[in-house]
Amino acid sequence: MTNILYSIDSIDKIIKDTKPSKVCIVTSKPLVKKLSWAIKKIGVKDVNIILIPDAEKAKEWKELEKLLTAFSTLNLDRNSIVIALGGGTVGDITGFAASIYLRGIKYIQVPTTLVAQVDSAHGSKTGINFIGYKNQIGSFYSPLATVVDIRCIASLSEEQIIDGLGEIIKAGFIKDRSILTLLDKQNVSTIVQSPDLITVIKKSIVVKDWFTKKDFKDVGVRQILNVGHTIGHAIELKYGISHGRAVIAGMLHELAIAESLKLSPPSIRVALEDLLKKLGIKMDTTMKADWKTIVHDKKISGTMINFPFIEAVGRAHVVRLDLKVLRKSLD
Amino acid sequence: MTNILYSIDSIDKIIKDTKPSKVCIVTSKPLVKKLSWAIKKIGVKDVNIILIPDAEKAKEWKELEKLLTAFSTLNLDRNSIVIALGGGTVGDITGFAASIYLRGIKYIQVPTTLVAQVDSAHGSKTGINFIGYKNQIGSFYSPLATVVDIRCIASLSEEQIIDGLGEIIKAGFIKDRSILTLLDKQNVSTIVQSPDLITVIKKSIVVKDWFTKKDFKDVGVRQILNVGHTIGHAIELKYGISHGRAVIAGMLHELAIAESLKLSPPSIRVALEDLLKKLGIKMDTTMKADWKTIVHDKKISGTMINFPFIEAVGRAHVVRLDLKVLRKSLD
Repeated sequence: MTNILYSIDSIDKIIKDTKPSKVCIVTSKPLVKKLSWAIKKIGVKDVNIILIPDAEKAKEWKELEKLLTAFSTLNLDRNSIVIALGGGTVGDITGFAASIYLRGIKYIQVPTTLVAQVDSAHGSKTGINFIGYKNQIGSFYSPLATVVDIRCIASLSEEQIIDGLGEIIKAGFIKDRSILTLLDKQNVSTIVQSPDLITVIKKSIVVKDWFTKKDFKDVGVRQILNVGHTIGHAIELKYGISHGRAVIAGMLHELAIAESLKLSPPSIRVALEDLLKKLGIKMDTTMKADWKTIVHDKKISGTMINFPFIEAVGRAHVVRLDLKVLRKSLD
Repeated sequence: MTNILYSIDSIDKIIKDTKPSKVCIVTSKPLVKKLSWAIKKIGVKDVNIILIPDAEKAKEWKELEKLLTAFSTLNLDRNSIVIALGGGTVGDITGFAASIYLRGIKYIQVPTTLVAQVDSAHGSKTGINFIGYKNQIGSFYSPLATVVDIRCIASLSEEQIIDGLGEIIKAGFIKDRSILTLLDKQNVSTIVQSPDLITVIKKSIVVKDWFTKKDFKDVGVRQILNVGHTIGHAIELKYGISHGRAVIAGMLHELAIAESLKLSPPSIRVALEDLLKKLGIKMDTTMKADWKTIVHDKKISGTMINFPFIEAVGRAHVVRLDLKVLRKSLD
């Protein structure tokens, strides 16, 4: 599906091969300074740089309009390449803009946060939030390549590491236990220095890619990747916490729901709580999702929701649940 | 590619087969009255109707935002069906909204103008205009079905017939001469009553479909369908005339350009002028396209433009032209 490369140095070759009419980097103001070495390595003369706001607030309708206006002003054409250099937000909105500008132009993902490197930059989903709901507007659109360079995440904060660990832990619980074994020896404050980090990243990408390849349009087995997200998305929107932290909170909630429905044994939740303790991730257990936000989920049709849950450590499943049943067990 | 049906009555079967969670018709205020019989035939209880403005002004960013907001307010989900009932504008913006809402939901095209029935409702291109340029933002997205019902075009104005004839004439000149033979006996004021009209419509759809199937993403032979559009789009935007009339004007201009470049013999332009006379279509020959608008064409990459031209009646070709050469022959 997607071409995954592990060094920014490889972008130079892509550009030499595809000979684009123009190259344009979309990034944020702080990253231009912080990643000036990376921009230099991309090595295009007369590169155009478009700056967008950082974080979730960039994934808005108004910002999309501005970004498309910038593409048009730069006269980008179907032979141009757009490079999304940044976190999940930059990747999601840039990928979406690239997918609808002139009905689609080429782009490259260069994720610069842990969560984007292991999750959002893979799987070809693009999108923005819309009138208060996450990723309501978007497309399935594959980049030319996704470039995961570990040098880009050298100076992340502990909270940004937790953001990435949310999706990494999920990958371990739904598919690959060996990720959890590797995490068992780690702590959020030191994992960036660990030689195991690149292995953990690669294994998590393999999990994401496995589901994406099986079900690109997200109508079946890929929905397992949504573990932690049914409740997590709603918590993320309500409390403004990071995506990964919300996914962890969502997993804890959903495991409790699955237990009450006799779908999961309590041992899985205990295993997750143990791992969080070892990693040094403290969770606020008082956070509650709003029902109205939950039912705006894309996995809903009519009165039913597709609810992915962990049935054993390393194995997950999707069940079709009546919304009334979900609501009852949520209360 | 697309499922083409020739009666609105067939929508009932599609809905029975797909069992959508909700059905929503997007149309315009005048059409709700005029086509109330068609809406009844769709025959869904509790059908939701979203009204959008008619004509090109509906294909704007602001209107897209409103339409997506309406989808969200109605809680449409991935198992819902949206029906675009209207002209090219309604089809283009509704198809685009359907393609990006929840990363894509199902839709049906029901074109109600001649130009939409023979051209815009086929080929899976959706889109809106953006900061003054036509179809700058959009997607390739196929409907469940395109329903061409001749009863929908019974009361079109002469200018609306000319709008459709523009694309029909183009189809004849680029691929199927037999369309031109049929048109030779017609006049704009009487063609709606002609028993040949349905044959002309079907033949024009076959031409469009032939190119679309060969090259869905419009990177090669499909660009032949762009005959008349390189100059026509710019004229349409500048003078606010109908798309089909602009395509005719564009064909006349482009034939003159092709002649000056020794690509087309003068006899083709003479044949087109003769046909227009027979049909009773009078053209304003003083209209001129703005260069700035022409170079915003999607077929441009770098300093080159893909220029489709008619090389013989019933046969067309695409040539890569230096923009400087085009500009010179335009002057």
